[in-house]
Amino acid sequence: MRVLITGANGFIGRHLTLQLLTRAAISGRAINTLLLLDAHLEGFPPDSRIRLHKGSITDAALIRRVLADGVDVVFHLVSLPGGAAEQDYDVGYQVNLMASLELLDQLRRQPRPPVLVYASSVAVYGAQLPDRMGEDAPAHPQMSYGTHKLMVEMALRDLARRGEVDGRALRLPGIVARPRQPNGLRSAFMSDLLQAYAAGEAYICPVSAQATAWWMSAYCCVSNLIHAAELSSLLLDTERVWQLPVLRLSIEQVIDALATRFGEAGRARISFEPDADLQALFGAMPALKTPQARAAGFCHDGNAGALIRNALNLTAMRKTL
Amino acid sequence: MRVLITGANGFIGRHLTLQLLTRAAISGRAINTLLLLDAHLEGFPPDSRIRLHKGSITDAALIRRVLADGVDVVFHLVSLPGGAAEQDYDVGYQVNLMASLELLDQLRRQPRPPVLVYASSVAVYGAQLPDRMGEDAPAHPQMSYGTHKLMVEMALRDLARRGEVDGRALRLPGIVARPRQPNGLRSAFMSDLLQAYAAGEAYICPVSAQATAWWMSAYCCVSNLIHAAELSSLLLDTERVWQLPVLRLSIEQVIDALATRFGEAGRARISFEPDADLQALFGAMPALKTPQARAAGFCHDGNAGALIRNALNLTAMRKTL
Repeated sequence: MRVLITGANGFIGRHLTLQLLTRAAISGRAINTLLLLDAHLEGFPPDSRIRLHKGSITDAALIRRVLADGVDVVFHLVSLPGGAAEQDYDVGYQVNLMASLELLDQLRRQPRPPVLVYASSVAVYGAQLPDRMGEDAPAHPQMSYGTHKLMVEMALRDLARRGEVDGRALRLPGIVARPRQPNGLRSAFMSDLLQAYAAGEAYICPVSAQATAWWMSAYCCVSNLIHAAELSSLLLDTERVWQLPVLRLSIEQVIDALATRFGEAGRARISFEPDADLQALFGAMPALKTPQARAAGFCHDGNAGALIRNALNLTAMRKTL
Repeated sequence: MRVLITGANGFIGRHLTLQLLTRAAISGRAINTLLLLDAHLEGFPPDSRIRLHKGSITDAALIRRVLADGVDVVFHLVSLPGGAAEQDYDVGYQVNLMASLELLDQLRRQPRPPVLVYASSVAVYGAQLPDRMGEDAPAHPQMSYGTHKLMVEMALRDLARRGEVDGRALRLPGIVARPRQPNGLRSAFMSDLLQAYAAGEAYICPVSAQATAWWMSAYCCVSNLIHAAELSSLLLDTERVWQLPVLRLSIEQVIDALATRFGEAGRARISFEPDADLQALFGAMPALKTPQARAAGFCHDGNAGALIRNALNLTAMRKTL
């Protein structure tokens, strides 16, 4: 089977690549070829299954070349993050919307409908969330990033209904722990807090200790992405777009778990200078119930301790990549 | 002021053109130039304000030429109707989605944000409507047509939020009375019934007498489109996408009104052979309350008698065009 990962060089893409090489199969079928697409592709292990395709997702001719020998499963991860997409609308429009539509359009022309796992985002909901939120919460995106994610979800659902692309979209929460480097993600502080505490460094948190966010480790996220590729068609008859289960934790709860793992002394190194915008966007996330997604086999990390273990073990793993 | 109508040769486009020529102004500003864009453009009155641009909305270079001297108000009406778009996905995708996105993208590059009135559709809701429906009913389109309309609504809302295009989308119900010719509209029967009864011809109705549909005359529709262009910015701060008020009438109620106007004898010429698909799509429309749209000045035809008067007077008007 041939598998494509767009954005393979990114934080989630790299973990997914390693995981797929280790598992070596999806739905019991061996992965013979792993097509990796990204603007840069560096440090991947030597593996005869890997084919590197360096270039932009906005290059339709490149996509055609990548898909020329067919594809069975696509993980479409590449995107310009929310903050960057809001700043540079044109690039976000081309990458997050137009390139995704072009990819969908090329996938529907494949001889057999490929499985498409699309990394959507909780940004589709916008900032006015209900106090107690369920999987049927309406989507009212407030930034271009969330708008474009939602538009692609719709196109995916339509092509799935037509039987042309076997799409599955997952709405991802903040994924930790990303490397500490400028990445255009407005939720980057969630990763930065973990990395700083683990490294014994001081950190100024841009949301309050009481701020509640939705958390997931990259390890858990990758498990969910692979699970999405393997979902039974029975489940897909009723739904194509899934809100992943999330751990809803306050910054305080996360710091408690960090203190348990890395020592109480770290607490004194964390200070707070809340930013009203960030607090509204990522620090006021309500309780979220996802019984359908859980029944379908999607999961969160379990608890704050496991979140930190999963998140920071993977960071260590990434460094050895 | 310069005004553009896409799909100007269509049923609504022609009525809108005549109405704008007669009114001669929008929001008190004189219309100096009326740009008409469509694949065919025939039979428009000689008027020095009119500029004809014959070609496809999918031709980005044509759009650039049309917009080269600027534009103040755009009525974006052109679309491939639902039935046709479902049959010929590629054309629907290019016309209904990609061309609309291209138009939006070109409009946001205008020196001042143009007003854009977008003809969306109740097709965005899909077939599973609540029994008592309000303006906040969730959109779950079931066909590609409704999916693409909803995607364009979202792009419009996002660019309005960014202050780049001053967009207003109206969700239109079935507009009557279209000329009786193949047009790819699955709701064409609504017009056909009116035209046949008025002409004293036999008609086999593809939904039952008890079927309830949402009706609006082209006259009323055009009034709403122009009203949308003139909406105050106060209203637009809170909403950019409006569900128009509709007349919800059963086929029986419409026939009663037709009998009052064109004579009882016509009743015997109407027979019924309900089609399950059409009945589900257009014959089970629930009561719909639109207090916000009504407060904002949008309207329906008032009652069944007025609907028929407005719908068939305009048909007569069209013939003289």
